[in-house]
Amino acid sequence: MAGPLPVSPLAVPLPALPPIAGVRLGAASAGIRYQGRTDLMMAELAPGTTVAGVFTQNRCPGAPVDWDRAALKGGKARALVVNAGNANVFTGKAGEHTVTATAEAAAALTGCKAREVFLASTGVIGEILPHERLTAALPALHASLGEDGWEAAARGIMTTDTFPKAATREAVIGGETVRITGIAKGSGMIAPDMATMLCFVFTDAKIPAAVLQAMLGKSVETSFNRTTVDSDTSTSDTVLLFATGQAKHKRIAAGDTAKLRDFALKLSEVLLDLALQVVRDGEGARKFIRIDVTGATSTRSAKRIAMAVANSPLVKTAVAGEDANWGRIVMAVGKAGEPADRDLLSIAIGGTWMARDGAVVEGYDEAPVVAHMKGQEIEIAIDLGLGKGRATAWTCDLTHGYIDINGSYRS
Amino acid sequence: MAGPLPVSPLAVPLPALPPIAGVRLGAASAGIRYQGRTDLMMAELAPGTTVAGVFTQNRCPGAPVDWDRAALKGGKARALVVNAGNANVFTGKAGEHTVTATAEAAAALTGCKAREVFLASTGVIGEILPHERLTAALPALHASLGEDGWEAAARGIMTTDTFPKAATREAVIGGETVRITGIAKGSGMIAPDMATMLCFVFTDAKIPAAVLQAMLGKSVETSFNRTTVDSDTSTSDTVLLFATGQAKHKRIAAGDTAKLRDFALKLSEVLLDLALQVVRDGEGARKFIRIDVTGATSTRSAKRIAMAVANSPLVKTAVAGEDANWGRIVMAVGKAGEPADRDLLSIAIGGTWMARDGAVVEGYDEAPVVAHMKGQEIEIAIDLGLGKGRATAWTCDLTHGYIDINGSYRS
Repeated sequence: MAGPLPVSPLAVPLPALPPIAGVRLGAASAGIRYQGRTDLMMAELAPGTTVAGVFTQNRCPGAPVDWDRAALKGGKARALVVNAGNANVFTGKAGEHTVTATAEAAAALTGCKAREVFLASTGVIGEILPHERLTAALPALHASLGEDGWEAAARGIMTTDTFPKAATREAVIGGETVRITGIAKGSGMIAPDMATMLCFVFTDAKIPAAVLQAMLGKSVETSFNRTTVDSDTSTSDTVLLFATGQAKHKRIAAGDTAKLRDFALKLSEVLLDLALQVVRDGEGARKFIRIDVTGATSTRSAKRIAMAVANSPLVKTAVAGEDANWGRIVMAVGKAGEPADRDLLSIAIGGTWMARDGAVVEGYDEAPVVAHMKGQEIEIAIDLGLGKGRATAWTCDLTHGYIDINGSYRS
Repeated sequence: MAGPLPVSPLAVPLPALPPIAGVRLGAASAGIRYQGRTDLMMAELAPGTTVAGVFTQNRCPGAPVDWDRAALKGGKARALVVNAGNANVFTGKAGEHTVTATAEAAAALTGCKAREVFLASTGVIGEILPHERLTAALPALHASLGEDGWEAAARGIMTTDTFPKAATREAVIGGETVRITGIAKGSGMIAPDMATMLCFVFTDAKIPAAVLQAMLGKSVETSFNRTTVDSDTSTSDTVLLFATGQAKHKRIAAGDTAKLRDFALKLSEVLLDLALQVVRDGEGARKFIRIDVTGATSTRSAKRIAMAVANSPLVKTAVAGEDANWGRIVMAVGKAGEPADRDLLSIAIGGTWMARDGAVVEGYDEAPVVAHMKGQEIEIAIDLGLGKGRATAWTCDLTHGYIDINGSYRS
């Protein structure tokens, strides 16, 4: 692209992000690909920090994903290093060398083992990531880390993103308040299969890695895994959750999930908030689309139907054109390959049921539907009339902006 | 759209289409949706004509698809009636009434049973198709049918198509020459799962319906089922193959497939020719893309990988932008969910291997690749290095034209 992309009309403001005990972070310019902006982010984590992670199901993952999968076995983390502009994917031995050298450099600065350093890279695929630029920039970046570096960190990991993404919640564990804050990036190549592009969540809670991992997997399933921009699953999708253990609540015994109910709820809220911010920054997005499926034979079936609608180019272009084309929704429901009975199917847009029991609702009031389609937040409801399965998916419209960004920018 | 769409730059001329003994056809204007063009096609078939068909796997099929599935059980056909502009999908009881009334009207004109009439409709989903307009136009159309009505028929079934599509071959059965001619339509909502939008093939060969059905199923699998425009599987996909039995060769005994070897080959050629014409008329298409996958663990796996690449919006926009972005091809291979080893994967564009064994080919000659990307016919080769599975898929690029057509035209 010539010049920066305009900010998404669906952008939301960055929330206030208070410090989290045990987390110091910041960003710097390493000159990897972009000029005049930060492209290297680092977070240092207090000793004793536990970690959980979920990664892309893409069969051609990037070298940092391989590194993190191995590092995750230790369950402990002391540092996170992320660069933007080069994904270090499909880079063979050179890619492995880059992640090892970067982790070792960060470990030396932090005073920890290399396997306690987590890495992520995002940007162009298939170009060698020159680790010298990363390792050269790390000492000054490390020296500058602070507990107020959240916005800098959120900006430092952006690629085609047009706004920085963060979310924060407080949760109560055993009477003590802990904080959960996450940052994310992502705009295109978004059809997370276990995670999104990049998302990092931090908490001062004191939770064993295994418990953390179980909660993360569950929350990702109903947040990132229910969103799509373009059906293309990235090679770099990574969600990492770090728990510094600096909070005052008592240690959580294995199996004591009742104490974590509020935490799990707030964690899910943070992840969903971030996932929807990624959708709001979908490449070329002008409208935000929510798809509620009910009456399916199972939750799994409802999810597949919701995602088939969310991934349909014909539904997404119809929304872009402000056309309440429910016929295309019927098509997308039918192509999902899930149980569906055409003659029981009902479809609503903006709360107006336009199709019921296999045919158009005669004389339905089109005016509120037309008005709804002109808005920025589009709601599609689909009832299968078969069972109790329900699921919600989120996506954005497909516009000329997507073609512009991806037909002319090697991202 | 205001005004007609410009003809696809990938269009091919209509071939000369000689008569087929036992087939008389033509088209008329029934005023269903379009003005100033034909929108109703009819073919009358000689007594004794056998028929085979494959239909959409979409779970919300149109009323004509339901009708044809039932009619196919008889194995005999005397007439085909097709309208453009309204798909008669998701129209409930009214839709069933329309197909019954249309079939009965055509049967009365032809002098056959209603269940020997085959029907297809294409166009907008969810609007009642007024059968009175069809039945009012049928008598004059029937009176005008002729053995030279091929071009009229091919044009009469178009919707967002920008050129008529036909293919013809001669085949030899038992020393006698027979002819196979097919017409097709399709441009958007193209991701056939058992068939394409609409395709009708006629032959004067004398082949039992069961044998015809087996050959059709096999040919569709390696032609229409290997193409995609936009990953959206239509609710109306229909391929029908009619054999009038007017040719002079001896009747084919069940199991005598050796005699049909040449016929099966030419049938496959006709279907592939038509399938590729549909891709060439893909909505907004500027470039035709062929994807050859080799070295997969199985044919099925190779097909899935080829289709994942063919359906990737990021690969398709990169081709539109003339960017040899093989990193996006890596992503699409990886997201297919099929066995793939990143470190064995090789990718070529236009015959130049750019990536081999999990990394970029150092110093490969970029000039021929750049020149190839500027052309209209793009060739992508992917070798998995795992086994002997191979498959080819075909698609087109994703351009502003697709957004224009589908964001502003209720098709």
